[in-house]
This record gives sequence, C-alpha cells and structure tokens, in this order.
Amino acid sequence: MERIPVGLVGVTGYTGMELARLLEGHPRFELVAATSRTECGKVLQDIYPFLRHCRTGLCPVVEPDPAALAQRCELVFLAVPHGAAQEMAAALRGRGVKVVDLSADFRLRDPEVYREWYNQPHEQQHLLEDAVYGLPEMYGHAIAGASLVANPGCYPTAAILGLWPALANGLVSTQGIVIDAKSGASGAGRKAQTGTLFCEVTDTFRAYNLGRHRHTPEIEQELSAVASTPVVVNFSPHLLPINRGILSTIYTMLTPEGLALGADGLRQAYAGHYAGHAFVRVLPAGMLPETRHVRGTMFCDIAVVPDLRTGRLLIVSVIDNLCRGASGQAVANANLMLGLPLDAGLSLAPAMP
Amino acid sequence: MERIPVGLVGVTGYTGMELARLLEGHPRFELVAATSRTECGKVLQDIYPFLRHCRTGLCPVVEPDPAALAQRCELVFLAVPHGAAQEMAAALRGRGVKVVDLSADFRLRDPEVYREWYNQPHEQQHLLEDAVYGLPEMYGHAIAGASLVANPGCYPTAAILGLWPALANGLVSTQGIVIDAKSGASGAGRKAQTGTLFCEVTDTFRAYNLGRHRHTPEIEQELSAVASTPVVVNFSPHLLPINRGILSTIYTMLTPEGLALGADGLRQAYAGHYAGHAFVRVLPAGMLPETRHVRGTMFCDIAVVPDLRTGRLLIVSVIDNLCRGASGQAVANANLMLGLPLDAGLSLAPAMP
Amino acid sequence: MERIPVGLVGVTGYTGMELARLLEGHPRFELVAATSRTECGKVLQDIYPFLRHCRTGLCPVVEPDPAALAQRCELVFLAVPHGAAQEMAAALRGRGVKVVDLSADFRLRDPEVYREWYNQPHEQQHLLEDAVYGLPEMYGHAIAGASLVANPGCYPTAAILGLWPALANGLVSTQGIVIDAKSGASGAGRKAQTGTLFCEVTDTFRAYNLGRHRHTPEIEQELSAVASTPVVVNFSPHLLPINRGILSTIYTMLTPEGLALGADGLRQAYAGHYAGHAFVRVLPAGMLPETRHVRGTMFCDIAVVPDLRTGRLLIVSVIDNLCRGASGQAVANANLMLGLPLDAGLSLAPAMP
Amino acid sequence: MERIPVGLVGVTGYTGMELARLLEGHPRFELVAATSRTECGKVLQDIYPFLRHCRTGLCPVVEPDPAALAQRCELVFLAVPHGAAQEMAAALRGRGVKVVDLSADFRLRDPEVYREWYNQPHEQQHLLEDAVYGLPEMYGHAIAGASLVANPGCYPTAAILGLWPALANGLVSTQGIVIDAKSGASGAGRKAQTGTLFCEVTDTFRAYNLGRHRHTPEIEQELSAVASTPVVVNFSPHLLPINRGILSTIYTMLTPEGLALGADGLRQAYAGHYAGHAFVRVLPAGMLPETRHVRGTMFCDIAVVPDLRTGRLLIVSVIDNLCRGASGQAVANANLMLGLPLDAGLSLAPAMP
Repeated sequence: MERIPVGLVGVTGYTGMELARLLEGHPRFELVAATSRTECGKVLQDIYPFLRHCRTGLCPVVEPDPAALAQRCELVFLAVPHGAAQEMAAALRGRGVKVVDLSADFRLRDPEVYREWYNQPHEQQHLLEDAVYGLPEMYGHAIAGASLVANPGCYPTAAILGLWPALANGLVSTQGIVIDAKSGASGAGRKAQTGTLFCEVTDTFRAYNLGRHRHTPEIEQELSAVASTPVVVNFSPHLLPINRGILSTIYTMLTPEGLALGADGLRQAYAGHYAGHAFVRVLPAGMLPETRHVRGTMFCDIAVVPDLRTGRLLIVSVIDNLCRGASGQAVANANLMLGLPLDAGLSLAPAMP
Repeated sequence: MERIPVGLVGVTGYTGMELARLLEGHPRFELVAATSRTECGKVLQDIYPFLRHCRTGLCPVVEPDPAALAQRCELVFLAVPHGAAQEMAAALRGRGVKVVDLSADFRLRDPEVYREWYNQPHEQQHLLEDAVYGLPEMYGHAIAGASLVANPGCYPTAAILGLWPALANGLVSTQGIVIDAKSGASGAGRKAQTGTLFCEVTDTFRAYNLGRHRHTPEIEQELSAVASTPVVVNFSPHLLPINRGILSTIYTMLTPEGLALGADGLRQAYAGHYAGHAFVRVLPAGMLPETRHVRGTMFCDIAVVPDLRTGRLLIVSVIDNLCRGASGQAVANANLMLGLPLDAGLSLAPAMP
Repeated sequence: MERIPVGLVGVTGYTGMELARLLEGHPRFELVAATSRTECGKVLQDIYPFLRHCRTGLCPVVEPDPAALAQRCELVFLAVPHGAAQEMAAALRGRGVKVVDLSADFRLRDPEVYREWYNQPHEQQHLLEDAVYGLPEMYGHAIAGASLVANPGCYPTAAILGLWPALANGLVSTQGIVIDAKSGASGAGRKAQTGTLFCEVTDTFRAYNLGRHRHTPEIEQELSAVASTPVVVNFSPHLLPINRGILSTIYTMLTPEGLALGADGLRQAYAGHYAGHAFVRVLPAGMLPETRHVRGTMFCDIAVVPDLRTGRLLIVSVIDNLCRGASGQAVANANLMLGLPLDAGLSLAPAMP
Repeated sequence: MERIPVGLVGVTGYTGMELARLLEGHPRFELVAATSRTECGKVLQDIYPFLRHCRTGLCPVVEPDPAALAQRCELVFLAVPHGAAQEMAAALRGRGVKVVDLSADFRLRDPEVYREWYNQPHEQQHLLEDAVYGLPEMYGHAIAGASLVANPGCYPTAAILGLWPALANGLVSTQGIVIDAKSGASGAGRKAQTGTLFCEVTDTFRAYNLGRHRHTPEIEQELSAVASTPVVVNFSPHLLPINRGILSTIYTMLTPEGLALGADGLRQAYAGHYAGHAFVRVLPAGMLPETRHVRGTMFCDIAVVPDLRTGRLLIVSVIDNLCRGASGQAVANANLMLGLPLDAGLSLAPAMP
C-alpha cells in the first residue's frame, strides 16, 4: 500500500524525537521531511544516532520552508514552541496541507484567554474557529473532518480524561476540584538550561508554577464544556525525576448522585463511559496506576477511589506525557484526519520495566 | 566532656543506618550498643562498610536484651516495627532507661484508634499517657521532661508543621483539607520485597494506600489538637524514585481572616509562628521548596501560596524523611530529654547536589 | 495468516515480562500459555496490569506441565533459573516441542566447565550436543535447523559481538583482553532481595563478582572458537542504576596487522564483518554508543577506538540486556527455528528518551 | 577561638556549592566572600536556598576583585575554569594571600604538556615551580609549607591513590595499565548544556573522550613519579547517572614480586602503605567499594583483587568526586596550609542511603 508522506517542523526536541520513533513503526505514514534551522543538510540519523539502520533515520533535515513542505507532504506535524506555530500553521493550511499542531497556539478558543495566559496576542485568530481540539475520545468525529488540529497539552490530557465521566454525569461537584499533577522531566523540553540538568532533577522533587501554569485555562475550557457550567480548578504541577509519565491525583466532592452509586457503581460509570475507547483503561478495585504501565503508549490508566470518610472521589489518571500527551496523540489525530484507524501504528505494549 | 552512652534497638533498617550516621557526628552521645538478632557478635562496620574508620563503626552489635541495654545506656532508640516496640519500651522504662521510640506504637493517644488502624490491640496502654509526641517545636517542654517519647511519623511531621500556623490562627477552614504527599523510597524500609526493587521504583511513579495510610489518624490527632476541633483530612501518599525526602502539597480553603491577611500577611504569620524555631524555614515569596534542599538535615521548608482565583491557601512543606522524619528528630528529642541543646549534632548543611 | 502458538515457562521475572511485551507486537506468534506456580489460574493482565487491553494480557497462566504445554505449543521459551531448565527442556523436546532456553543450562558445550562454574553436575548432558548457541549473526544457519537453542547470556552477547571481528581477523592479540562491563539492574532479576532494593542501587555504583562471574566461561568458549585458540579474558561486571542496558568497554592490544589498518581501516573491517547484519550498527568515527540508543531493541552498537599512544584497540559495545541480551534474542531465534524472517516482530525503534 | 577568614572565587558551580556546605561545618574557617559576576550584591542564601538559616548563607556575593579579596581573606579557593584561574592566582599570591586552585592550571609541572592537552599556552609559568600538587597523603609536608596548591583532578585522585602502593613497591608492571573510570554527573559541571540535561543522562550510560581526556597527563605525571619511570596509561572515562562519586576499575599485571605476595600479602601491602592515613580505607577480602559508601566524605575506599587465572591485579578505588575529588580535598589542603589538622571539618560519616 502506498505510503502517505508527512512532515515534521521542529525535530530537535523530545516531541520531535518521539514522533520519529512512532513514525518508524507506522504502517502507512512516511516521514519525508523534518525541519531544523541548525541541523539542515543532514539526515535524521546524523543528529539521532538511535535511528541508524531505521527507515526514519534517512529522512532529510531541511529548512522550515512551508512551500517546500507543502509540495512533499499531505500532513505536517508542528513541534515548535507556542507563538512560532501560528504562522507556519497558516502558511501550510493556505497551501492545502493538513496540520497537527503540538503547541498551545490553537487550543484555547478564546483569543483573550490566550493573550492573558501567554502574554502575547494571537496572530491568527481567524484559524481558531476551524481548529479542533485533538482529544480523540472526545472529538473524534470533528477531528476526522478537520484540517487543523490543536493537539492537547500533556497535563490537560490526563486531567480531562480523568474528570470527564464524573463531570459529564454529575457524579462530582463542579466546585473545589484539585488537580495535583506530577510530570517527568521530558515535559520540560530539551533546551539547555541549568534548572533541568541531571544534578538539578535527580534524587529530588519540587512543585513549580503553582496557580499559574498555562495548562490551567486549557483544562478549565474543556471541563467547563463537559460540565456545561464554568469549572475553575486548582492545578498544581510538580517535576518528577523520571523521563516520561504524568500522574494526576484529582480531588473532587461526590454529589448525592455520585454517593448513591457506591464504589462499584462509580467504577462502572467510568468503564461504561470509556467502553469502546481501548486506549483508556479503567482499573479494577484495589489497583492503582503507575506511570511505567503506560510507558511509550497511548494508554490512559484511571483509578476511581471513593473516600467515604470525607465524601470525596479521588481519581488517579496516568499517561505517557510524550506519547499520549504529545506525539502519539498527534499521530492518532493524523490517523483520523487521513482516514486511517485511530490506532494505526499505535498498538504498542508498554515498555516494562 | 564525658560522653553519654546511648543504645539502638534495630540497626539493620534505614532509620538505624541514619541514626548511626548522626551519632557519629554527635558531640555528646556515644553509641555503645546496637542490636540485631541476625548480626550480633559483629561490630557495626562489618555490616555497614561505610562506617569503617568511623568511631561508630566499632560499636558492638548485640542481642536485643533490655537488661544488658539498661546496664550500659542512659537512653535507647527503638528502630523496630510497630508492635515490637511496645514490650521493649516497657522493659527499658521499667529499668529506668529513657526511650525514644521511632515506631508508631506510642503516637496515638487513643488505644482504640491504634487498634482500628493497626489491626491489633495495644499491649502497653498504661504507657500511653506518659508518652510525649516528639515534635520538638510543638512539645519541646514536655519532651524535656519525658522518659518515653513517641517519635512522629515522617508524613505527619511534614503535614503538621505545614498546617499548624494556619489552623492555630484560624487562617484556613478545618474542613476539606487535602494533603497530597510524596515520599522517597527509604520510607518503605529495607525489607526485601519485590515492590521496592530498583526496577520497580526507578523511572516510575505511583500512589499507594489512598485513603487508608496509617499516618492519617496521627495527622488528624495533632491537627485536631491545634485547631481545637476535630479535623478530618484526605491524606494521599505517593512513592518517589528518590532516596530521601517528603514533599507535601496541602490544599486548604482560606477563611475570611486568612483572606484578609493577603499573601504577605500569610507568609508573615507563618514566619512569626516559627520565629525562634531555626529548623523551620518559611520561604520568601516566589520560592518553592525542594526535597534536596533539606537532604540529610532537620530543616522543614515551607512555602505559603495563596490562590486568589480559588480562595485556597496552598502550603508546600518539605522534610528529609529519614533525618527530620525519623532519626534526626529522634536525636533532637534525645537531646532535650538529656538536657542538651535541641540542635546538638544536628547543625548540618544540606548535601547538595 | 494463521498464528503459531508458543508458550513461556516462567513469566514472573523480567525476561518473562519482556517476552510478553515482544510477543504482543509479533506478527505471527501467539502466546497461548505462560506458567507460574504461584499465579496459575489467572490471566497475564492480572499479574501485569500494563498488559490490560493487550492481546497478550488474556493469555492464561498455568502450571508448568510439559505435557499440557506440548499439546498447545509449537515452541516454548524457558525463562527459569539455570538448573530448573534442564528437565523441562528434555521433557518438551521429548514431546517434539522446540525449545529456546534463556537460562545458562545449554550454553557451555563442556559439562565439566558447567559443573565447575555452576557448582552442580549437568543432568541432561545428552542434549548438549544438539543445543545450538543462539547468537544469530554467528550461528544463524544452525539455529534455523535446531530444536533446542541455548539463548546467550546478556554480557556474552555484548562481549562476543564486540570482539568477534577483531579476533576472527587477527587484528588484536588473543592475550590480555579486558572486558569491563556495566549492566542495568534488570539483569539482577526480579527476586526480592535487599541488595537490589531501590535505595541500594540508585545514586550509587559498584563492581561485583570480579574474576568469578559465570558468564566468563561462556565468553571464553565463543571467543576461543572465533580465534581458533584458547582465549582467556578478564571480565568485570558492574551494576548500573538504570533499568536496562549493558555497555562493555573492551581493551585489546593491536597486532601489527591491526595497527597497519589504521583507524579507518579498523572501522571498515568491523563494518564489513557486519554487513548484512542489520541489528549490529558499527558507529562512524567520533561517535560512541549509549545504552539508551538501543533501549527496547535488538541493536548492538559498536565503536572501534584505536589508541595509538598505547597500541591498544578499545571497543565499546552496547546492547539492551533484556531485549538483545535475553528475550528479543530468544524471539529472533524462535523466528529462525520456525522459518520466519530473523527480524519478525523485532523491527523496533529505540525508546528515546 | 578566632575564625580564619577565607574566600571563594566562583560560587555558582557544584564545587562552589560543596565548598559552601563544607565551610558551614568547619570549626575554624569563616567564608567571608564568594564571587560571582552575575550574582554579586546578593548573599549566598539568595542563590542557594538550601543555605538559609546557615551561617554560610549570609556570606556576601561580590565581584572577583583580587585586591578586595586580599584585604579580607587569608586564603582563597579558586573554583573557576582552567585558564581563568591563572591570573587570579597570580594576583592573589602577589598580595600575600594563600591560594588553593581547584582548576587544572597548576597541576601539570611541564607547561608544554599543559599547552598540548589544554590547547593554550600557560600564562603564569613562573608560578608552576611553587605550586604543590595537593594530594595530602603524598605531599602533605610540602602542602603545609605552600602558598599555592594545585588541587588534584577528581579522576586522578581516585586513580593515583589506587595505584600508588602497587607501583611504589614494584608489585605491578608499569606497562599496560588500564584505568576504566566512571563518574557521576556533577563532574560535568553546572553549565547549561543539552548533553547533561536530566533526560540525556538518566537511565542511560556512555563513555566519553576515550583516549583524550585531560586528566590523562595528570595521572601519568604522578604515577611516573611514584614508579620512577615513565608510565603511560589507558584512561577511559564514563558518565554515570548519579550525582556524586567516581569508581575506577584498574587493570594491572602482577610482577613476580607481586605474585609472590599472594592475595593477603597484597592487601597487607596496601594497608601498610596507608597506615596513618585515615581517609584511605583498604577493604578486607571479599568486600568491594561502592560510591555511596564515601558519599559526602574524604574517604577513598580501595579493594585489591588479584586474578590468578590471568596474572592480573585488579584495583577498585572509589571517591566522592565533589568532596574528596574537589572541594573537600581543597579544604584539607587549606587546613594544612594554615596549620590546622588535616581533617578539621572533614570528619564526616557518609550519607547513606
């Protein structure tokens, strides 16, 4: 079967690396161009020795020229910082190329919210109404028809999947939700900076950006849509000394409806909600998720833990921030946009240990 | 100056190891006996090569015989599992030896609560009323006069120090408190078990014992005393792939009094509360604690972070679970019990990186 | 295409885990039975939650009964300790089932050497002459015709692939070879023991079994065959605080023939030797291998570094101890034994980072 | 007793951090000035929050002005990169201030060797003959009388202490020595660079600079002096995913004299050589060193392991690269230069685990 040519803008970060890994195993996509201003003229295996003897390793590294990309690619993944993605997305879309943008540029529907949290105006507001939020379980149909998909943030992916069934079914209060989230260091990117040196991250643990992380409005936007009422959350990110993985411990108050369901009923509500969505695994009673159990995969593992002493429902959700939280979800969205099965190239067993 | 002979019951675990390290640097204590049923007849450096060429390395390893210990020691540290500590504490105290018990056996004042959470009756209930809860900032005077000190749990130490000023001063609600706590693996002990093997802990993260960890009643007991009203909390422990350290992210609701103080006022309330308590460091605005910043020390670092969007006060508190959360606090208590300055042998700079 | 039923004896260790992962992605094999005395009656996902929503997760866990296995499987992988594999291999082979044994039981051709290094007599010596040493690049043809394959040890795989071209072509002396090897902790197995607890392995490094590791005779057996003369080596294993990966730094003396080739010639000799063997990647000048570059794959990365100051040839070879050094190589051998391409199910891109 | 004022040029790196930690616990030194061009005007606790509530945390951060330093300090530690240390050392020494230089600038006695390995001419050659190589066990007497001490490199410290007794006593050949060394990531410094980011170092392992690391000539200079004949070594550094620690596995050939001693005799030769040097711990038979056993201390642990199969003597030596391999050794040298006991402020028990 003929392969579908795809491109990648921004290959030197961890999401670019992960896209290269996933595209190597994809049955239909062929990575035909990867861009980097500093490395152009090489092939991928020159900058990523782990790709030697891999098909993807021979992909040329080129300048980020939208015209050239449009000539060669049916779809392009944008793995560049927010702000930088806007113009490239517009240029590619203007040339008829489908775009999956891994940055934050098209996730927030309200440009004022973007301006407030990202401290800069949105330069391509006309594209916002076309952009589809790329959470496949939630917006699968719209994604299949989209030409521009805003790939969700890593933290929002874990938080939204964890809270969706409870909020959509009125099982928990929309007030007072706390999302205590912990992420591996690959989420901090591959830029050289002292704060993410090995010796600054290993054998230690810290919170950061309490109350002001930019994924907050993204989480609130989607939860509010699900709950049909404005939802405001406390979202607290922490930095884990691990490569990959996000675990979110979510604290909610059970409503009378939720309380009435009991522990088994609550789990069944979750299981029923995600029936038919094989990437979401609702764990049985007594089992709690671990980040390694989803390593390198699209799985989101969720435990539903009522605490009758306090009337709370605790929800623990886990994803791989690079795969499900970024590049894997981008491939899933590209699959839908190009008429392939959601899980093409993504049926992977977790790498244990 | 003459040295004060002290003993250690249970030397093969991590708290025993840490006591040996701290006693090596202590200006007045001399470790004269350490017990282990499996290793007796040796000296400490035979089982702990890191103690070679250290004074403490020559301490004999003996049978856990209370009579023999009583002959040689003025004070004994008990670093054995809960349950096992009760009889030994009684036997030593009956012989006039002061005891610092690092287990949970004398922390809960109500034996019914002990029975409920530890699934066994308390066998030495008559000792409970004499036992003093060994949090020096809170009970320093009583500790100085005690002959039996119940050394606090690691999680409770971080949680109580983090919440005390807020609850004592009515700055936050006594309802709906969430303590999301993360601990290094030394907290799980040194027993051979699959779940704490290197490959089961490294590069991963998980929650455990949600809603049913045994430190919960201990936290509630002390917070209720501080608040003068029953306090029920959600306490959620997680396992970090690090050696040492606990970070607790604590979520509370500000009262009108708390809100009125504002961010600076809240920090000042904390700083004022801990003035004169050099081991507690209330961080300035914009600074968040990290577990490594207290590594190997008695410091408890606390950040006070109001979130006006949600009306919450977030409190982040950090300790070293082995030093402040166990053996260091035990030495501090022993200092007070024997008339020494609180910080004797404990004025240590954190080991960075 | 019909799937070929295979079995797995011993599923609770890390090699069993890795086999489950690899078989999940295999295009032709179907894992139909996995044995464990302690877990039988379950399906795999009950003991390995990471396999939920995976085909392999539904594989039944059964008693290790050779008759039952023989009825259901064309080939069985043995992932049990040395000693235990002998009888099971004999029983299965007697019933016409092909066997890939991941233990050391059939690697040493001389039963006296086995007795000397493993402190026990070999109980199935009649099988030794049929067993083929399962290093596919070296014995591919014999493996294809074998019914019993002795899967190589992890350290020997890295050492032999690193030294083979040099010794076979007389480029280095057969005397004085030093193999300084470093392995991730999964190589130590999943048995509960204090020495491999997280806190005993993380943030530290140590050598072990210097001069007496059991992989020594296996390395010497194969290198002697390659060199056509007895080769004795210094093999020194070390324990790395990582999950997976072996890196061997090998020190040899260049012969006049080797010296005459020069740096480029030496690399070309290696590249030529491994031409057509896609799993072995000889790195270009200036590039050194890293364990993560082969993570989760069959790749063996080799750097050839002459040191003219000392007349030595340094060889650095790297593999994933669980995949190439155990379960992946077992699948490759099974592929050959059952007429499939060597790389069926094994064309994997390394998981980075 | 009056404190002796000392200064620190270059406080933002890991060796500066470690000096701050060690000076905090020193009974006689007082850190009165620490320099940093980017942070001047602050006090140390502003840039190192772990030093809050520590005496050293209040030390002012100032411009690196030699005149001002000379007014306030009796001795200054230079923790700046090689090259930068030369002029500062000259300027301070010209003002009568004693200097311990932690860079490589005064370690190599031959300026031509410096030029060859560091790719730049030495600008202060007249100081070379006054500089004393700061390995206290070897040059203690000269250090006590020196005004400029060249603090040894981390790798050389471990290698020289490991080989000294064997070479000085003719127990091993001076030919064919291999030093396979592994270091924690703090040895790579605190500069922001991609190669030492957490995700580039954790869960992986690699060799680097094979055959051309700049510590090679330093090792050879001292070993040649000890052996009274030119010694050329293979020195191969590797990067460990740990904070601190160097382990060197050293391969030598036993001479007839060495062979005649036997295993016990060889160990006794080492133990005798280091009798009276409490910081060097020669391990008993069957015990191998670990980096954590010396964490945060001046200890160098050495195991002597003869291999009769190959006629080799293996030596494993371990240090903490930041303490013994840099800042702790600098304090020890300063102690001697100022008439204090070698171990003042350095009698520390290793931090375990």
